[in-house]
Amino acid sequence: MRRTEFISDLHQKDVFDHLIQLEFGYLGINDSKGFARPVPLQFIYLGGDIYFHGADEGEKFQVFTKKSKVSFSMIKALSMMPSYWTAKDYACPATSYYLSGYGTGTGELVDNLDDKAFYLNKIMEKYQQEGGYITIDASLPMYKKALKETAVFRINSLNWDIKCKVGQNLKQSKRENILDHLKNRGSDIDKETIYWIKLLNR
Amino acid sequence: MRRTEFISDLHQKDVFDHLIQLEFGYLGINDSKGFARPVPLQFIYLGGDIYFHGADEGEKFQVFTKKSKVSFSMIKALSMMPSYWTAKDYACPATSYYLSGYGTGTGELVDNLDDKAFYLNKIMEKYQQEGGYITIDASLPMYKKALKETAVFRINSLNWDIKCKVGQNLKQSKRENILDHLKNRGSDIDKETIYWIKLLNR
Repeated sequence: MRRTEFISDLHQKDVFDHLIQLEFGYLGINDSKGFARPVPLQFIYLGGDIYFHGADEGEKFQVFTKKSKVSFSMIKALSMMPSYWTAKDYACPATSYYLSGYGTGTGELVDNLDDKAFYLNKIMEKYQQEGGYITIDASLPMYKKALKETAVFRINSLNWDIKCKVGQNLKQSKRENILDHLKNRGSDIDKETIYWIKLLNR
Repeated sequence: MRRTEFISDLHQKDVFDHLIQLEFGYLGINDSKGFARPVPLQFIYLGGDIYFHGADEGEKFQVFTKKSKVSFSMIKALSMMPSYWTAKDYACPATSYYLSGYGTGTGELVDNLDDKAFYLNKIMEKYQQEGGYITIDASLPMYKKALKETAVFRINSLNWDIKCKVGQNLKQSKRENILDHLKNRGSDIDKETIYWIKLLNR
């Protein structure tokens, strides 16, 4: 039996805005041997597109050179719920809550050096927020070689599918029971889970 | 420029044994629209194969019914290293360390109810180590319906590619510098990173 785990349109933006702050997302590419390959990578989301950087050769580079179909998957794992929180003896209710987003689009390369510098700075702003470097600039000799040798990848025109499991299918009383258990266990991820259960079931 | 991040065969087992304990891995499947789709899921590794469970309909189920080529990707994200730890002003050395494994194989369904029960119990043992449930058993009426309606997926004959970035390419003095910075910052993930740098560069 399959259960869809949708949330209201109203909350999709809340979830998406959180997911794009994650450290890693997974690129999906078709490799040369016919396998669908999930490639973990650091990324930014900007103006509707996903960007990341990498080597200017190899499988990813070939895929993006050809403007192939690619996908991008993000998940925020929330709390695990042991079965005995909701059922005596019966193992099946054991589950995990999560927030997830899956996007499909077209891969392409950013090739202008100024544009590359722009997006690489945006990546630095996400992953090294405290600064401590000279802004990447194609006119600076110190960055010229690196800018030529670094590939910047864009996935554009993504269509997103946001799915979450945060107790949407539960009756209010069962959800309250889960919230009590999470509060008692009280780990950092439990606190985050409580936040999302409350927000997305409002 | 591309840099391969291999480690010695000797250490591949250490890394692999760690990766299979992760909470999530990413299945790679070719979806019906021609996209390579990374699907995050909880899993076990047993006897050379990956197992997970899910719905007995939908895209994953179709892919495994057809015994298609599938892949499985795992990553343990280690510390992020700001550029200024290793270079003044220059942004490019900013990086992240990681351990990763990528396997390709064939997907198939486990269809015997006793076998399903066996693997579901193994999944429970990984994710609910403290117990608190009656062992899943096809002869017990309480589990019969769930066992029929739950699909158990196997990826078999996987070929694995283990890659890590833990400072293998650095000279000893530069690696010592990184280790000093990690020790000073001292977060939990920094401590784990120190462990892996030391182990995998031994």
